[in-house]
Amino acid sequence: MRIGILTAGGDAPGMNAVIRAVVRSAEREGHEVIGIKRGYKGLIEGDFIKLTSRDVGGILDRGGTILLSSRDPRYKKLEYREKAYKNLNEQGIEALIILGGEGTLAGAKLTAEETGIPVIGVPCTIDNDVGGTEYCIGYDTALRNAVDAIDKIRDTASSHERIFIVEVMGRNRGFIAVEAGLATGAELILIPEERFPREQIPEEIEKAKKLGKLHFIIVLAEGYCRAKELEDFLLEKIGDKYGEIRSTVLGHIQRGGIPTHFDRIMGTKFGVVAYESLIAGERSGFVAYEKGKFYIEDFEKAQEYKPIDREAYKLNTRLAI
Amino acid sequence: MRIGILTAGGDAPGMNAVIRAVVRSAEREGHEVIGIKRGYKGLIEGDFIKLTSRDVGGILDRGGTILLSSRDPRYKKLEYREKAYKNLNEQGIEALIILGGEGTLAGAKLTAEETGIPVIGVPCTIDNDVGGTEYCIGYDTALRNAVDAIDKIRDTASSHERIFIVEVMGRNRGFIAVEAGLATGAELILIPEERFPREQIPEEIEKAKKLGKLHFIIVLAEGYCRAKELEDFLLEKIGDKYGEIRSTVLGHIQRGGIPTHFDRIMGTKFGVVAYESLIAGERSGFVAYEKGKFYIEDFEKAQEYKPIDREAYKLNTRLAI
Amino acid sequence: MRIGILTAGGDAPGMNAVIRAVVRSAEREGHEVIGIKRGYKGLIEGDFIKLTSRDVGGILDRGGTILLSSRDPRYKKLEYREKAYKNLNEQGIEALIILGGEGTLAGAKLTAEETGIPVIGVPCTIDNDVGGTEYCIGYDTALRNAVDAIDKIRDTASSHERIFIVEVMGRNRGFIAVEAGLATGAELILIPEERFPREQIPEEIEKAKKLGKLHFIIVLAEGYCRAKELEDFLLEKIGDKYGEIRSTVLGHIQRGGIPTHFDRIMGTKFGVVAYESLIAGERSGFVAYEKGKFYIEDFEKAQEYKPIDREAYKLNTRLAI
Amino acid sequence: MRIGILTAGGDAPGMNAVIRAVVRSAEREGHEVIGIKRGYKGLIEGDFIKLTSRDVGGILDRGGTILLSSRDPRYKKLEYREKAYKNLNEQGIEALIILGGEGTLAGAKLTAEETGIPVIGVPCTIDNDVGGTEYCIGYDTALRNAVDAIDKIRDTASSHERIFIVEVMGRNRGFIAVEAGLATGAELILIPEERFPREQIPEEIEKAKKLGKLHFIIVLAEGYCRAKELEDFLLEKIGDKYGEIRSTVLGHIQRGGIPTHFDRIMGTKFGVVAYESLIAGERSGFVAYEKGKFYIEDFEKAQEYKPIDREAYKLNTRLAI
Repeated sequence: MRIGILTAGGDAPGMNAVIRAVVRSAEREGHEVIGIKRGYKGLIEGDFIKLTSRDVGGILDRGGTILLSSRDPRYKKLEYREKAYKNLNEQGIEALIILGGEGTLAGAKLTAEETGIPVIGVPCTIDNDVGGTEYCIGYDTALRNAVDAIDKIRDTASSHERIFIVEVMGRNRGFIAVEAGLATGAELILIPEERFPREQIPEEIEKAKKLGKLHFIIVLAEGYCRAKELEDFLLEKIGDKYGEIRSTVLGHIQRGGIPTHFDRIMGTKFGVVAYESLIAGERSGFVAYEKGKFYIEDFEKAQEYKPIDREAYKLNTRLAI
Repeated sequence: MRIGILTAGGDAPGMNAVIRAVVRSAEREGHEVIGIKRGYKGLIEGDFIKLTSRDVGGILDRGGTILLSSRDPRYKKLEYREKAYKNLNEQGIEALIILGGEGTLAGAKLTAEETGIPVIGVPCTIDNDVGGTEYCIGYDTALRNAVDAIDKIRDTASSHERIFIVEVMGRNRGFIAVEAGLATGAELILIPEERFPREQIPEEIEKAKKLGKLHFIIVLAEGYCRAKELEDFLLEKIGDKYGEIRSTVLGHIQRGGIPTHFDRIMGTKFGVVAYESLIAGERSGFVAYEKGKFYIEDFEKAQEYKPIDREAYKLNTRLAI
Repeated sequence: MRIGILTAGGDAPGMNAVIRAVVRSAEREGHEVIGIKRGYKGLIEGDFIKLTSRDVGGILDRGGTILLSSRDPRYKKLEYREKAYKNLNEQGIEALIILGGEGTLAGAKLTAEETGIPVIGVPCTIDNDVGGTEYCIGYDTALRNAVDAIDKIRDTASSHERIFIVEVMGRNRGFIAVEAGLATGAELILIPEERFPREQIPEEIEKAKKLGKLHFIIVLAEGYCRAKELEDFLLEKIGDKYGEIRSTVLGHIQRGGIPTHFDRIMGTKFGVVAYESLIAGERSGFVAYEKGKFYIEDFEKAQEYKPIDREAYKLNTRLAI
Repeated sequence: MRIGILTAGGDAPGMNAVIRAVVRSAEREGHEVIGIKRGYKGLIEGDFIKLTSRDVGGILDRGGTILLSSRDPRYKKLEYREKAYKNLNEQGIEALIILGGEGTLAGAKLTAEETGIPVIGVPCTIDNDVGGTEYCIGYDTALRNAVDAIDKIRDTASSHERIFIVEVMGRNRGFIAVEAGLATGAELILIPEERFPREQIPEEIEKAKKLGKLHFIIVLAEGYCRAKELEDFLLEKIGDKYGEIRSTVLGHIQRGGIPTHFDRIMGTKFGVVAYESLIAGERSGFVAYEKGKFYIEDFEKAQEYKPIDREAYKLNTRLAI
């Protein structure tokens, strides 16, 4: 069998582990793997490359994706998808493994339906917000990066007894904010899912300062509001009464770096399950991980709302005293 | 209520997160926490210290244990335990939270039985080998340390095209070896649970070299054999035919360093569950984590044999090609 | 002798190494050290604390400053300085060691002149811009932080073939930008000291893309212009013709984290020299480091313009091909 | 001009930065660079590969050496060198740049003398023991690795109040031991250059324990004695009177990992100087760095004894109180 593989949307650390696992599993059993470059863009433009076990040597600990990635809105139009399908056909690609977030998996679903060839998705996104699966590749590394950064900021926040707003990724969701906040003992976590009233923040700061805390760190998911906005609000309300107010946006550093052992191991397992499912006859769906088990889930599930760990969120409030 | 807390046996990164969670949860609800220093030693010798929320500030990201730890064989003798119980009584300690591995939890069980006061254990050991719970605090950080070290060794192994034996912790068990090996793409993993025949190793090395691999890394759990022994065996069998042979013992660096976000978060959760179980009336058992759930498990379970992830072990063999 | 010590202005990793070295050197020879909290603020407000060898144990590898820091503009006014001098007198402080950047050292100079007690400065600033000394404590750690962050960004920049603007600290100076750019092989470094014409940037990007580079990373000192401004300029000029354009501001993460071995060693040496100079009878000046030698430099020198390593800047241009 | 480049002896982090700088500098000015694989072995066996600017992209932050390395004693024999010279001649190689430690530079000297072609050496060794130059590429990264490891060990040493012996690299020299000891505040540093009397160690331990120190860390250069030997000696003399005694050998992890910013920057500068010296007509010698300046030094100098920083050694003794 000739299997195509692509990575689309935002890159996620651990994608290379998935690619390596697919290529080596397939080669071992006599199948061929074709890398498609830059996600759906390469599918449309026919940018293909053969991948062997040696090509994926030494990539387990590399961030990003060796296949490159992009967001190509053209894939939403039938005319471009048909172009892509023609390329698949010409290259003799009989099955696809597609890595990415929910947008990418929606494209994978369409592709499975319209081509009739088996398509298996692998949820990869640092936002961890794909429905139907506890874990998405890249999240653990993003969390490590956010925690490393907040640890650093705490040093300077303490030395200057500052109120510090740290904006982490999460356009609509608070996954990174909740766990990074809990891991760093942040004084306050602000997420879109639990709209802590902005007006109460000054009171929280006052309470903490009375307890003798040197700093007050707010971990803010970008989906709650932007850091600058909150900084301005607090400046207006409390000025520097409880210490200077500073804000920082962690941004793209959350996305890179050497993948954690967890993302390398999970990436490897997700990749193997994707490959084995294909071989076992699966025709459509994505690899999901729940309670220690891997299985293939319907593509629709990926779009479902995935709740955050509300317990963890509450826990932090209780412990940040 | 006055709650005593102690850490015994080998220290594990994340113990401080457990201590912090217990102290802050208790103080919030009006209970008092007494730290017992150096594990059972401090219990016998009456080395107690009051812990407040401020005392546990800034310890979430510190390795080791602020309560200090030791192995004190005297606690196996009734006369010393009675001395300890007298101390508990005099201090008015009405409940205990005890952190450590299986040996420590065995002591906790005895204490619960003999004193009649509630005793809750928290499994903390980098070996991850306590039965009845998927996870033990400290394991994730130890894994990170092992993986970081193997990543470094691979650089030099590749440059010199060497065969490298890296001995990781695991006196009887292969937990660290299997996952560290998988995360680093080790060419071979040797663990006590799966006795890969030593005689076949030269053959594996030959195969890998024929595939064009620059290095051959063996991740060895100390329970399989010691690094030096394997090095001598290979030297005798193959000399430097396939590259120079080197070995290294990671040792105590696996135990230290800033706890990972996972150990900080899990430590916090384990600590909260330990405290809440006490308050809810639990009288004996340890906090266990299985398939995303926390609960109290009987102390006996801690001594049960906990199987390694055999799938992960096999996976590595298949992918290291 | 009773020696006062304070840290003022922006905190710098390695300040704790200086404090430790002063306290331990002094205690060893029978002198006493008084810590003054929050810089000149604590001097004005009389916030003093005795420091012993044990108080400075375990701080060598801690970021920030255990003495806390602040910027207190009141110290520019004579009435507040007189209040401070009164405090010094009352406390029996016979000499001062003052850690900080050029603003802080200007205050140290005034203090020496007006009180007549010996005052020794230690240049500490991540900007490395104090005149008269090759090195300022904190710069090496800031550089490590910036390089770590750019390494991470490069992963995602490559995967998406993006043009990435990374803004690093340096309000008026390009020290961090030049060395961080050189260490990461940035495609372009923009600093206030060498005003590379903005209009030529699109051309540079085109050249690099023609050479087959996947990404184009611009390391930008904030003193050249702000990241957003450059992003907007490039968007207007070239849109996404050569790849998407992104920008990120590293901000405060540059300031924190475990001090590097270099800052710990240099901090220790600066601290010892400061102490020994006092004992040897120096009355005014700051510790300078040039070409492997430490000596006491006049305070005026601190305000002099310190040139960047122009060779390094040019080197990068030549090698980024 | 066609320039050959090779890396020999122990690999050192930052060698890739040197290679990149040479290749890009040369290509820019129309010269060609030929990589010789596995050091002198590749020279003897004619294992050559063309290197272009693209081949050295993305290697700045990679440990080890992309050219591979080895120790080949055959190069000490004229017959093999003549074979090598024939290869050089056949390949039209007109000049050589050779990276390595003092052994490697001795080979470079011979090659320059016997072939008459220009040969420039670059001192690369984590031991930092090449004479005539303050700095050798790789030392800073090795130091970082050693300090990271000792920081980790201190966590567990403190928690168990242990005496810990940490053996670092340095067969004949104490460079790493002195600076790693100073950066971590080790209680004792043992190096071959200053034979601290073994009999006095128990006394030092007693003193520290009386001061209230939780741990006692000995940083031991392997050239003083081996860790096991010292452990046995201390066990015999003091048993566990002052805490349990443990030892660990850092070994090869000191050699690997992402090169520090300093090794990347210095590697780049050493490489450029090597190339430019060749172009400027230098015929024999190695790049040396002293007091902020780079120049070409006679090969003989490399063999000279280079003193350690005795001040730093003494400093540590004074501050470890």
